[in-house]
Amino acid sequence: MAGATMDKIVSLCKRRGFLFQGSELYGGLQGTWDYGPMGAELKNNVKRAWWRANVYERDDMEGIDASILMNRLVLRYSGHEATFSDPLVDCRKCKKRFRADQIDPNEKCPEGGAHNLTEPRPFNLMFKTTVGPIENDNNIPYMRPEMAQGIFVNFKNVLDSTNRKLPFRIVQIGKAYRNEITPKNFIFRVREFEQMEIEYFVLPGTDEEWHRRWIADRVAWYHQYGIRPGNLKLYVQPPEELSHYSKATTDLLYRFFPEREEDKQFDEVEGIANRTDYDLTCHTKGGKTAFKDGSFLQNEHAVFKQTYFDQPTNTHLIPYVIEPSGGVDRITLAFLMDSYEEQVTEGKERTVLHLHPDLAPVKVAVIPLARNRPNMVEMAKRIKRELQSAGRLRTLFDDSGNIGKCYARQDEIGTPFCVTIDHLSLEDQQVTVRHRDSMLQDRISVDALQRYIEDRLA
Amino acid sequence: MAGATMDKIVSLCKRRGFLFQGSELYGGLQGTWDYGPMGAELKNNVKRAWWRANVYERDDMEGIDASILMNRLVLRYSGHEATFSDPLVDCRKCKKRFRADQIDPNEKCPEGGAHNLTEPRPFNLMFKTTVGPIENDNNIPYMRPEMAQGIFVNFKNVLDSTNRKLPFRIVQIGKAYRNEITPKNFIFRVREFEQMEIEYFVLPGTDEEWHRRWIADRVAWYHQYGIRPGNLKLYVQPPEELSHYSKATTDLLYRFFPEREEDKQFDEVEGIANRTDYDLTCHTKGGKTAFKDGSFLQNEHAVFKQTYFDQPTNTHLIPYVIEPSGGVDRITLAFLMDSYEEQVTEGKERTVLHLHPDLAPVKVAVIPLARNRPNMVEMAKRIKRELQSAGRLRTLFDDSGNIGKCYARQDEIGTPFCVTIDHLSLEDQQVTVRHRDSMLQDRISVDALQRYIEDRLA
Repeated sequence: MAGATMDKIVSLCKRRGFLFQGSELYGGLQGTWDYGPMGAELKNNVKRAWWRANVYERDDMEGIDASILMNRLVLRYSGHEATFSDPLVDCRKCKKRFRADQIDPNEKCPEGGAHNLTEPRPFNLMFKTTVGPIENDNNIPYMRPEMAQGIFVNFKNVLDSTNRKLPFRIVQIGKAYRNEITPKNFIFRVREFEQMEIEYFVLPGTDEEWHRRWIADRVAWYHQYGIRPGNLKLYVQPPEELSHYSKATTDLLYRFFPEREEDKQFDEVEGIANRTDYDLTCHTKGGKTAFKDGSFLQNEHAVFKQTYFDQPTNTHLIPYVIEPSGGVDRITLAFLMDSYEEQVTEGKERTVLHLHPDLAPVKVAVIPLARNRPNMVEMAKRIKRELQSAGRLRTLFDDSGNIGKCYARQDEIGTPFCVTIDHLSLEDQQVTVRHRDSMLQDRISVDALQRYIEDRLA
Repeated sequence: MAGATMDKIVSLCKRRGFLFQGSELYGGLQGTWDYGPMGAELKNNVKRAWWRANVYERDDMEGIDASILMNRLVLRYSGHEATFSDPLVDCRKCKKRFRADQIDPNEKCPEGGAHNLTEPRPFNLMFKTTVGPIENDNNIPYMRPEMAQGIFVNFKNVLDSTNRKLPFRIVQIGKAYRNEITPKNFIFRVREFEQMEIEYFVLPGTDEEWHRRWIADRVAWYHQYGIRPGNLKLYVQPPEELSHYSKATTDLLYRFFPEREEDKQFDEVEGIANRTDYDLTCHTKGGKTAFKDGSFLQNEHAVFKQTYFDQPTNTHLIPYVIEPSGGVDRITLAFLMDSYEEQVTEGKERTVLHLHPDLAPVKVAVIPLARNRPNMVEMAKRIKRELQSAGRLRTLFDDSGNIGKCYARQDEIGTPFCVTIDHLSLEDQQVTVRHRDSMLQDRISVDALQRYIEDRLA
């Protein structure tokens, strides 16, 4: 039995329609990816599992869906306009640009080798565009570089329309954009990506306790959906790595690169930060944005205050916020990798995704043993419709090949159950149910099929 | 009893957290909207109902999720770069710009009144940005102005990874962007919006029949989820209105403005077009893009052919495509409006959303009659957790006011069931279930509660 390597997963993604390069027909657009049929379902299921855990099963939540295009003032007062940049150097000879932190300490051009580089200059990583027909300073919106700001600027709106008391959370799933200079490494440094973010607003003083609870809570979620504990680890950022607005940040790292040497196997899937009252202090009438160098930007544009009235103490205060923020694309890939296995059983090789049933793109495949037998095909289609109509069970009719090939195809996309209709089924109204993980087969009456599968998916 | 007007809906949207203006804290960003807690849930439910009908319940489908940022060549060969524009005129006196089709026939400036306008010039409605650190002609991607192109350029990838035969569909839900000159009218002309799109690929010659079937199918979907037949109508585009690539287009219009005079009440929610083989002919190696004026653009950049091999006829052909394309935001608003009712019952006024249970943001509210009685609150929370753990029933614990206020709040967001825990419940383990539409109340044992509600939601 062999597990995943990044190369194997990249190959599976292309072959079985999980991921394609963005704009591939035209040679691609670097740093963008298109989810194919299986990838789109898997990613949707990951988002749904997260939303269910963090919205539906809690009493202290609100979900929102804010616009990707935002007024440039949002990103000015968040501090991004001034500081969300990488240092770049130009080569005066070959005219190319490079990230300063990726340059040889000898300071020579990575391409031509010339010792003729400029001093590093900051390059802002936000995509900007122009609204309306004339470009001027007032109508440049940015594509949001992170989702958090869309939540912070809506804090008061959500509060007023829902009468929430602290602590409570606002959550969001959506896309964000960063103009990476050198996108690379599959989905690890991309220009368009998706985030799942929780902003959990708490009373000052309770923040450290909530930070600890959130770390435990998020780790439990990964375990619940099948990530093996040894493949997930915590990384507590040391003080010198912390963003200046963060009191403490713990990253969750996944073992994406098991084939590398030990200290290079893990990469981030989620960060859980104690952002204090930094963000709401930026985004409130009369507030101020504090920069790392000690300077401030006074907020002269916010049109209302974003404070919280605390009844017990009879004060208006600015809540603290704990932020668990995960990358949807990386998390989806982590579930894909963790479930991947190559097996040799009874002399036969197979590749199987042991995905949690909630995450599996397809729950049941219904397969007619002989695709040229109309009554067998008809029975399979009827069973597919009946299972599907229950609503929960994403069911696929599969007559794409012989039974062995069908099983192999379904194993490779992680379908928990295959239901086969054979010659005898037409007479005795019984079908064969094959289990993905054990490969065991049961003979089940059609009438009892739905209950049988639902009991085993719960 | 009174129904909805646009003004009432706009007011409800703000008050109950369905929709906020985008970047409102900073005076807004025109043409963008943020979905608040109830709006985000309603919109998600609309998308889920659509995905279920068009992906899960069919055998001929594939869903994808393509990138919003696309290589500029995609939009060049689709024809958008050359022709996706509005004609603008400048006022030489006040220096402002206006859409030529909104100018007085006398051709005077709508603001200053000066007769000093330029000739109309085309203004492209796509948002463009720059990738990488240096702006040049090769690294300008566009934010997709419609989702369709993301599907067309992935046609061959999806075909190869799934072994589909015609007819089959590729579907997608996602955002699209248009740099509208004059965004206005609530969500009707916006710069960021979401689409639900089906591209249904068929054998040439079968397209007209499939076009008819899709129109009927889509109308049935709206009716299934509660849109009243009289509020939805078909509009068959006359030849002079058709896009040059469309053989036939039928729009579905919803009665968004019942308060207007009769011929101005309806606006589009969805268009169902027979796009022929136009799109795949654009996006294939050696293909060509046909413009309205009869000119052509030869495709010199596509790196592979996008054709379909038809076994029965042993030929490579370019499929025709039927495109049902709906606006998520407009459709969400249509469901909101259609379900809205102001009632006076037994002398009391109430506002209620009679939303289909699948669309309702919250399915059940659990309300303790006295919020200062810990054991009553505890019992309510326990019931909420139990109902929630079934997975399907989005359940809210609501102790925000007295029982009358709670009912009113839940009616206004369309919650089908309110479950009230009173003093007697602590003793007899029975609760009161109130029905949103009839306002009738049943007394139900806690043990039987989940089954009772599920039976009535199905």
